[in-house]
Amino acid sequence: MTDAPMTAQAASTATAGDILSSHLTAQAGAFLRALPTAVGEVGARPGAAVVPSAGTADLLRAVRRIGGLLHTFGGTFEQAWAQESRTELRWLLNLLALEPGYVRRAARLLGALDALNGSEADGPGMLAGHAGSPKARALLDRQLTLARTRAHSTVLQELRSARLHALADRMTLLVAEAPLLEAAGGRAGAVLLPQAAAAFGALTAGAQQLPLRRAATPYGGDGLRRLGAVPAARGAVDADAALAADDAPWHRVRILVKRARYALEVCGRPAVELDELDEVLGRHQEAADAAVTAATAARTPRITPATAYVLGVVHADQRLEVEAARYAFGRRWPELPPGLDGWLEIPPAEGWGHTPAPRTA
Amino acid sequence: MTDAPMTAQAASTATAGDILSSHLTAQAGAFLRALPTAVGEVGARPGAAVVPSAGTADLLRAVRRIGGLLHTFGGTFEQAWAQESRTELRWLLNLLALEPGYVRRAARLLGALDALNGSEADGPGMLAGHAGSPKARALLDRQLTLARTRAHSTVLQELRSARLHALADRMTLLVAEAPLLEAAGGRAGAVLLPQAAAAFGALTAGAQQLPLRRAATPYGGDGLRRLGAVPAARGAVDADAALAADDAPWHRVRILVKRARYALEVCGRPAVELDELDEVLGRHQEAADAAVTAATAARTPRITPATAYVLGVVHADQRLEVEAARYAFGRRWPELPPGLDGWLEIPPAEGWGHTPAPRTA
Repeated sequence: MTDAPMTAQAASTATAGDILSSHLTAQAGAFLRALPTAVGEVGARPGAAVVPSAGTADLLRAVRRIGGLLHTFGGTFEQAWAQESRTELRWLLNLLALEPGYVRRAARLLGALDALNGSEADGPGMLAGHAGSPKARALLDRQLTLARTRAHSTVLQELRSARLHALADRMTLLVAEAPLLEAAGGRAGAVLLPQAAAAFGALTAGAQQLPLRRAATPYGGDGLRRLGAVPAARGAVDADAALAADDAPWHRVRILVKRARYALEVCGRPAVELDELDEVLGRHQEAADAAVTAATAARTPRITPATAYVLGVVHADQRLEVEAARYAFGRRWPELPPGLDGWLEIPPAEGWGHTPAPRTA
Repeated sequence: MTDAPMTAQAASTATAGDILSSHLTAQAGAFLRALPTAVGEVGARPGAAVVPSAGTADLLRAVRRIGGLLHTFGGTFEQAWAQESRTELRWLLNLLALEPGYVRRAARLLGALDALNGSEADGPGMLAGHAGSPKARALLDRQLTLARTRAHSTVLQELRSARLHALADRMTLLVAEAPLLEAAGGRAGAVLLPQAAAAFGALTAGAQQLPLRRAATPYGGDGLRRLGAVPAARGAVDADAALAADDAPWHRVRILVKRARYALEVCGRPAVELDELDEVLGRHQEAADAAVTAATAARTPRITPATAYVLGVVHADQRLEVEAARYAFGRRWPELPPGLDGWLEIPPAEGWGHTPAPRTA
């Protein structure tokens, strides 16, 4: 919200291209500032370092916003260029998110195990003193550290690749001038609002696919028992496939929430509601991923029954977190899509002028 | 409610002894009618029969009410007799509840496993197609069938015992005349209301010991993670002890709810709220007991890691049910204790006359 300074006054006469360029310039600038820091951080960090670094976080932030902007307002950009840019940004996003993802997953799973164990201050848990707990903890720690070390090597290698250099060049060009189409010359309201509205429409449609009413009833067993039906493809039902299919629409809505958030930022509107929904769905995704890790660890050959039992409890515990996140989402999801309600009725040119967007820089 | 016919008119002039005798006669009569049926049912049933029988259910119902009545209105009876009767009734209660308890536990645990597996209509669950599921199911089924068969033999043996005959004789005497103290000659309102109020006081005090506010927040992890502290007795923390200590105050409140229910019945007041609370705490108890069974089964020597893993999931699932029941209780528990509010202000003699208790027989 603070990256693209623009007064309401200026916005009222701005073209769509002005607004988009201003945002893209700011975000591409942030990208270029964060990139060397992030590369340096990854290089300096030994494989087992803990904290996800600030440079990487800044870089991820810019990458997400540029990608979202190019998607939502895609009609205003040269098609091929926007498509290529998004592909490259997505590649970098996945690459950069890998290692911090493992760090967070380890913190989540080992934290859950400790809470279930009761070594925390909150009192004992249902695994207190269980013989399998230290073994399961060591197993999870070992597997996640290994995954993280591998991710670290991959990131380290790719951050020196020609592909990243090409992407950085692309961002440098973006600071100078975004390849806009003629349509970008139109009034901001007239050009941008329909595209932002489409992003909200996609979000609403995505959320309508979710079992929101069911999820809004606590303890309905949505994360554990009543998974969505999997297209009965190749015979036997597989829990991994069923869980993935059940989680997928929620993961998709998370992406749509992010896009809507970034669209609101471009339109200069506060996005508090969407920030919260994004946070909730982030928890949903991380719990779902952690559950998969626990289930996978339980399939490690030659573990003891006690270890497997503890991993079963941890798996169920993380699916419970998935369910809790869905409940939180169901309670927060508004009847109407947030942010743009009543907006489209305002004549575009005035619409921009009347928006008292709070801006700090 | 339908066992002790008494019009409001009759109640207004009744003594405490009249009311109590009328209730005890009705319940002791029900006891004596149900006893031969129950004994016959247990005897006729092979060890592996499924349905808990109607005679046993009727007998349990009468036993619970007589015991509750003797406890709550104990001040009106001969002390030693009431105490002995309660001991014998409790013995029969525990004996009779054993076998149906295992039947219900098997239904609950195997049902949970099936739901987690997804063989039910609701779609697949997180254990769908897991190699350990059939093994865990067979293990639980085997252990519970064995426990039930043992319980059946015990019940069969005890139902022929002199102890049961003595208890039946005691009930026969009760139909004729309850050994009341002189105090029972007082007006019903003056004598019974303070004792009923004491039962409600005990319930309120018991509920105040519960972490109700925490339980009323869904997904707080109360059943799994944040168990009450166990008095750090003999060094190491033990999950079984921690879980038992955490559940104990809820089990105690369940008994207090039942006593308050039966006291309301004697006072001729509807007890819908308490029926609901009783039902919720019944679920709490059964889920807690089922969780113990799953945890115990997971300690069976020489099971496979896959079986142990599935039992871990089932254990967590049942603790989740415990948590869900606490949530339901926390949502239902009223600010004021239900049933007797405003009652004690009514002058006793009039109080009885004014009570428009709906009576059907």
